Amino acid sequence: MKPVDYILGIDGGGTGCRLSVCDREGRQLALVTGGPANFTTDPDVAIQNILQTMKDAKSRFPKGKLDLASCAAHIGLAGIMQKSDADTVAAALPFADLTVTDDRTTSVAGALGSADGVVVSVGTGSFVAAQRSGSQCFLGGWGLALGDQASGAWLGLEALRRAVLAYEGLAAKTDLTEQLMLDYGGTPLGVLTFTEAAQPADFAAIAPGVIAAARSGDQHGLDLMHEGARYLMLCLQEMKIAKADMVCLTGGIGPHYAAYLDPEVTSRIQPPKGTALDGAVHLAQQLL
Amino acid sequence: MKPVDYILGIDGGGTGCRLSVCDREGRQLALVTGGPANFTTDPDVAIQNILQTMKDAKSRFPKGKLDLASCAAHIGLAGIMQKSDADTVAAALPFADLTVTDDRTTSVAGALGSADGVVVSVGTGSFVAAQRSGSQCFLGGWGLALGDQASGAWLGLEALRRAVLAYEGLAAKTDLTEQLMLDYGGTPLGVLTFTEAAQPADFAAIAPGVIAAARSGDQHGLDLMHEGARYLMLCLQEMKIAKADMVCLTGGIGPHYAAYLDPEVTSRIQPPKGTALDGAVHLAQQLL
Repeated sequence: MKPVDYILGIDGGGTGCRLSVCDREGRQLALVTGGPANFTTDPDVAIQNILQTMKDAKSRFPKGKLDLASCAAHIGLAGIMQKSDADTVAAALPFADLTVTDDRTTSVAGALGSADGVVVSVGTGSFVAAQRSGSQCFLGGWGLALGDQASGAWLGLEALRRAVLAYEGLAAKTDLTEQLMLDYGGTPLGVLTFTEAAQPADFAAIAPGVIAAARSGDQHGLDLMHEGARYLMLCLQEMKIAKADMVCLTGGIGPHYAAYLDPEVTSRIQPPKGTALDGAVHLAQQLL
Repeated sequence: MKPVDYILGIDGGGTGCRLSVCDREGRQLALVTGGPANFTTDPDVAIQNILQTMKDAKSRFPKGKLDLASCAAHIGLAGIMQKSDADTVAAALPFADLTVTDDRTTSVAGALGSADGVVVSVGTGSFVAAQRSGSQCFLGGWGLALGDQASGAWLGLEALRRAVLAYEGLAAKTDLTEQLMLDYGGTPLGVLTFTEAAQPADFAAIAPGVIAAARSGDQHGLDLMHEGARYLMLCLQEMKIAKADMVCLTGGIGPHYAAYLDPEVTSRIQPPKGTALDGAVHLAQQLL
């Protein structure tokens, strides 16, 4: 095997992928972005877009300088559900040394580095992860229909459900429920039509309004943030985290739960050390 | 306009449609079944299948005897969401006198006839209806993502959610949650794969197991039946039903809630007078 010249971290998701070329010490030499790379959505497109991003990266270096067969790499991809998915990706790529995980693993490695701690990741979806002595365990996720409690998509969908209940007189009307009904044409039929075609990201687009409503004291907004926080606390308790563990709230929604979690957790919240791409580079470095 | 010779009732849904030809007094002369007729799923197929059923009905009578242009008819179709849908169906059919509604209206007319009362309809989906002085009002429905609380599909999906929570240590393990995990391969990934492709009817297929679990004292089964019943009671209270009103529990799941509703409701439960097809005939008779 050739000696490793460079390390590469790749972070891939439904909106695009990013590749970071670093020296052996992890200093970034080049950053390249590419097309969508969600393995579940389309494995072939994901692999093609990663290969294209690698080609683009090579073109940033003098001819022959960036030899992928002498690089160590870690790839974190959305939609990697089982070992066979990771094996499929690894088999398609030419690295000297390569590990492939889902994007949860890289985002936790990015947030915590090598430190013990907990990541509460709440964006369009949600999961809670604990890292101890370099090994990780996860709770939650499983998508909007089955799980992703507390997530942006969950907040949006639950708010729409409450808007319909309020319209029918089965729950209290508040500014939030009234505004949502207006947004969808004033009747549950408009909400239903939206719901039938909506993807998780479309529901998550409603979440900032729910968070803002909670902040101004709207009862449904507050109920939903408290219900989401109860689920996240349940996960944190099941994780049996140590008192010294740092807690990172990541994702577009995560930090908004700080005000609703129990004080023994909020007192230990620290900003994440880095992104999922930083996590991929960090994990690639572990291969040296 | 020609005098009305016969009255026709038609009940259409996703699995098929049924047509009843009756004399002016409502006595059935012929019963014909045909293909699926859900307006939302496919309006053209629905109309074609109804026309075919009418043609089949004509063939049951001596040539020229059943003249559709001198019949009064009512059609109750799944998927009729607004007046324009009903107008589209009416415009395609040749009856002297015709009314078109969704299948909720015919099922309520079938269950109650002309009597005042309440229908709690719980099958794959759910709704609650009140009928007073011949006019009806409805609560609920809106599909599995947004509503259909207490329904068979809702029971099935909520049970799967609890099975995943129990697997992760976030809820108590019971016989029901353990059995469900086994049914889907022993990990949440199997449940997730099922959920991604499942239609409401697939979730509803899980409901009998939930009902049976509740009957044998399983805590998650009991919780779900009580939660469903709480929603149905909320609807009944919002309907402000009179003490004398009869209550009908219809659909494959409805009667199973009898044991979980408040006593002042259960004491007034009566079996439905008839089916949605009977309701369509009843409503066609009102046109005379």
